[in-house]
Amino acid sequence: MTKIKVAIVGYGNIGKYSLEAVKAAKDMELVGVVRRKESVGKKSPELEGVKVVADIDELGKVDVAILALPSREIPVAAPALMAKGICTVDSFDIHGKDILDLYKNLDAAGKKSGAKAIISAGWDPGTDSVIRTLLLAMAPKGISYTNFGPGMSMGHSVVARSKAGVKDALSMTIPLGTSVHRRDVYVELEDGADFKAVESAIKSDSYFCNDDTHVHQVPCVADLRDMGHGVLLERKGVSGATQNQRFQFTMQINNPALTGQVLASCARAVVKQQPGCYTLPQIAPYDLVDIDLEEFILHTV
Amino acid sequence: MTKIKVAIVGYGNIGKYSLEAVKAAKDMELVGVVRRKESVGKKSPELEGVKVVADIDELGKVDVAILALPSREIPVAAPALMAKGICTVDSFDIHGKDILDLYKNLDAAGKKSGAKAIISAGWDPGTDSVIRTLLLAMAPKGISYTNFGPGMSMGHSVVARSKAGVKDALSMTIPLGTSVHRRDVYVELEDGADFKAVESAIKSDSYFCNDDTHVHQVPCVADLRDMGHGVLLERKGVSGATQNQRFQFTMQINNPALTGQVLASCARAVVKQQPGCYTLPQIAPYDLVDIDLEEFILHTV
Repeated sequence: MTKIKVAIVGYGNIGKYSLEAVKAAKDMELVGVVRRKESVGKKSPELEGVKVVADIDELGKVDVAILALPSREIPVAAPALMAKGICTVDSFDIHGKDILDLYKNLDAAGKKSGAKAIISAGWDPGTDSVIRTLLLAMAPKGISYTNFGPGMSMGHSVVARSKAGVKDALSMTIPLGTSVHRRDVYVELEDGADFKAVESAIKSDSYFCNDDTHVHQVPCVADLRDMGHGVLLERKGVSGATQNQRFQFTMQINNPALTGQVLASCARAVVKQQPGCYTLPQIAPYDLVDIDLEEFILHTV
Repeated sequence: MTKIKVAIVGYGNIGKYSLEAVKAAKDMELVGVVRRKESVGKKSPELEGVKVVADIDELGKVDVAILALPSREIPVAAPALMAKGICTVDSFDIHGKDILDLYKNLDAAGKKSGAKAIISAGWDPGTDSVIRTLLLAMAPKGISYTNFGPGMSMGHSVVARSKAGVKDALSMTIPLGTSVHRRDVYVELEDGADFKAVESAIKSDSYFCNDDTHVHQVPCVADLRDMGHGVLLERKGVSGATQNQRFQFTMQINNPALTGQVLASCARAVVKQQPGCYTLPQIAPYDLVDIDLEEFILHTV
């Protein structure tokens, strides 16, 4: 069988874990990693034998690019690759209108060039979106709750770290139930910084001002950092005319490892789609796995 | 929007709950119920205003037939309807080789006539199969466990009821964890029947002989009957190279109500597919729900 030629674009946390997932997939060939020019020369043991370049054109034929980039870079990076005929997968994570805009742009880009894209392919949005959709099909009337954590929010940590006087910061998402969350922000201050001023700057930021946010000063944020995360997704609803149908999905996972794996599984699925753009619930789950159809029907269905 | 014209074929428990789910769906029109000739005249309040016939041809144009029939009747009933150009959905529930044979036959029937079929569309096989597939995509290496119950097994109850001397019977599936189950069979005996003989006939049947089966004599089985059921699906596995990723899906549901709802949701999805046959994990979950795509991306993804 011809292997799917996969490139990883960006090499932060998500890029590193995507690389592990691609290497573990028997049906994929890692053709290389694309990094910023200034990082191309950086050597790390897991990149031994991996081609690292600054421009994806140096990698020859690429079927799929896994975009392990910050969300705000995706709307520019994805269409540029699709114009070259390369399929893309990303874990764009800004819910709501931003996802819809990205969907429309990449759908048009794909229909023009023949390329395909799967967007927002992490765990939320991503696999959680698939579960939410399935529960809507099982109990169309009712309410779903998504409870995150306890776990580190990468986006909120970055915002807290950007405040004046903050040397390092970590924002934990604490689930209080029924989709309500508390944020516990741990900050390590620069010499002479004023804790009250930092606390106020964080609490008034638009990322935090709508949540119950608690800021704590600690001597060393690095000592608290753990990539474990989790979710509890619940629905209570009505199947047909029958009330009180109850569903729960929970997981306790390493956050970037799961995101990297979902991206790699989507790299497999994306090449099987028609030109255009897809969110994860618009993809048949079977397309995500590398299992012969007869074996699959015998042992998984 | 043109509504999907749905007929329900068979009118036992699953047929009754499918009717409720079709009636609750704004994008579907119930064109009628097909029953055995001797049952066509039977009146029940919920069939008021519903066309009840013995032959589906009497219903005019039908887009989709929900086959609410015993599993063993599906391999004959489905291809006959597909030859008429009618799409079918069923909840065929015999795991393994029987599903594969049905898949192959209906896939060939669909490719010949242009019709489409979704098979084994209940909750297991069915929505549980979708969850199992998604978990394989999230953690490709590892072990999944499916724990059923506590709840009534319809198939096992029918087998227990068929034994000589048994007036009524109920077989409960009790989960012991890690996919191991006990079966508690409650029997109401006919006058003069010998409990020891009944117990031995049940325990030696192929449906029961491989499980830890306990047979209990009770004065009235009807007093124990409850259609609640449940499942606990667990996976512990590896995402990329990261061990110990943990996932659990649980539900507590009315069994035939959920099956009827899944069948109705699949009646919506089946008309959107290419000719041929599909198991539920081969269908994009979004196809199962009646939500405008932009609304869906804004609020569910």
